[in-house]
Amino acid sequence: MSLLVVGSIAFDSIRTPHGEVEEILGGSATFFSVTASWFTPVSVVAVVGEDFGAEQLRIFHDRSIDTQGVEQVPGRTFRWKGEYTGDMNQAHTLETQLNVFESFVPKIPPAYLDTQFLFLGNIDPVLQLNVRRALPNLRISALDTMNYWIQGMPEDLAKVLATVEILLINEGEARMLTHQGNLKKAAAIIQKLGPRVVVIKRGEHGATLFGPESIFTVPAYLLDEVHDPTGAGDTFAGGFMGHLARTGDLSDSNLRRAAVYGSVMGSFAVEEFGLDRLLRLTPEEIESRYREIKRLTHFDA
Amino acid sequence: MSLLVVGSIAFDSIRTPHGEVEEILGGSATFFSVTASWFTPVSVVAVVGEDFGAEQLRIFHDRSIDTQGVEQVPGRTFRWKGEYTGDMNQAHTLETQLNVFESFVPKIPPAYLDTQFLFLGNIDPVLQLNVRRALPNLRISALDTMNYWIQGMPEDLAKVLATVEILLINEGEARMLTHQGNLKKAAAIIQKLGPRVVVIKRGEHGATLFGPESIFTVPAYLLDEVHDPTGAGDTFAGGFMGHLARTGDLSDSNLRRAAVYGSVMGSFAVEEFGLDRLLRLTPEEIESRYREIKRLTHFDA
Repeated sequence: MSLLVVGSIAFDSIRTPHGEVEEILGGSATFFSVTASWFTPVSVVAVVGEDFGAEQLRIFHDRSIDTQGVEQVPGRTFRWKGEYTGDMNQAHTLETQLNVFESFVPKIPPAYLDTQFLFLGNIDPVLQLNVRRALPNLRISALDTMNYWIQGMPEDLAKVLATVEILLINEGEARMLTHQGNLKKAAAIIQKLGPRVVVIKRGEHGATLFGPESIFTVPAYLLDEVHDPTGAGDTFAGGFMGHLARTGDLSDSNLRRAAVYGSVMGSFAVEEFGLDRLLRLTPEEIESRYREIKRLTHFDA
Repeated sequence: MSLLVVGSIAFDSIRTPHGEVEEILGGSATFFSVTASWFTPVSVVAVVGEDFGAEQLRIFHDRSIDTQGVEQVPGRTFRWKGEYTGDMNQAHTLETQLNVFESFVPKIPPAYLDTQFLFLGNIDPVLQLNVRRALPNLRISALDTMNYWIQGMPEDLAKVLATVEILLINEGEARMLTHQGNLKKAAAIIQKLGPRVVVIKRGEHGATLFGPESIFTVPAYLLDEVHDPTGAGDTFAGGFMGHLARTGDLSDSNLRRAAVYGSVMGSFAVEEFGLDRLLRLTPEEIESRYREIKRLTHFDA
């Protein structure tokens, strides 16, 4: 089934111990949609500037991503410059130019109004809520957020949280949102705010899914080298939501499979800079890594 | 089969956000032996002072732990005072009194000379090597160490590493030992130094086992409250080695089970101060938590 993502499209400049790239295609909607496109048809609502051209559009279209909702407006596209050092667990932002993203008002094309699966990427919670309300036929909506909104707009964030089924959030941000250091208690607090499924992303330690029926932990796949962690969280979300939308199955066992696909896709994302590895995948590679994570975690009862 | 541990016996004074205790029984050999005693017969080689009396001895004997190798000498027993704050991932040492532990020379009672399973707790690598060499019939020996020896006595540590089958080590110390940030590469470096099995302990994130045939990751069991992390690493080692000694089975699948028992026992250790929870266990509780970790990690292939 079709999956809609609302989020950012950006040009990223990134430095890591493995190299440096300038103005490559990035942003939450980009990483999410490219990833989810391996599982299900995807549509994007985002804003770009005049510097976004055929070259960028081709990346989406090569993955059969519907870009009707990508609005082009006067000005420059969102730019982010960041650096990773040491264990690369944390991005250090060197520069942020919001540009056209600053006045982004998501517009849902009429063709998308019957959308059943929605991912609200990390944007202003007021905009997230407007999108959520504009889509009456949703079966599953998932939300990402960050410290900036948790601290700056807690009431608006609470409103949109009350309307979604799934929250995907970083470990540190889950603690910040709930003022609770214990992850199990933090997840229980979030579940009372609305989302019955809370996926806590733990970087190189994988992710923990708190569902209505059970808790599930998936490790990160162990790589010989992490080249660029940018987009890993949105890529996890793309694999997770992509699998849910593909199957339409929200059972406990399928939520677990979705989290494993999230971890699988996140592991590919960080192997190379930007979208490089995600664009060059095959379905066989995805299934093979899924089995490798099975092998990494299996033990006899 | 019988399992021998060489390590410290200490009196610990501990402050955590959940309370404070004074001079309770602790030390690597203590946590290890009490834990492993749930799996197999255990013997201890350690040193204590004149302040170690019938009350402490009874704790070992109630768990049927053989204390022939616990030498009592003039002076005071090793004391450690520490504090945990915030997320409790790191102990802050407030005071260390080595006391009789400073001149500890492990003496192996004749009855132990045919020992087949050995755990060398975190002590001077020269002493570890002497113990290792004194036991000609070992099937499996495992070693723990810490930053102090890695930085201060790298050559002696390398010598003992070359003689053991298993290294249990913290994530940060594995990186320090190998000058390698990537855990997979760090484990491969360690495997070339001697141990064919490397268990990297990752605190609240569980542990990763690098075996000769495969890599296995086990999460930490998610608790509602961590009261006192002291001894969690030695408790993990006690469950791991206890299961290996009990079964005598070093297959890939049994190494995985052993790591799960390590995680199980570590999760009990931190539920209460010191040994309290470990002394009050039942075999049924251990098996039940093993199944809970299975449930926490299982997904369909």
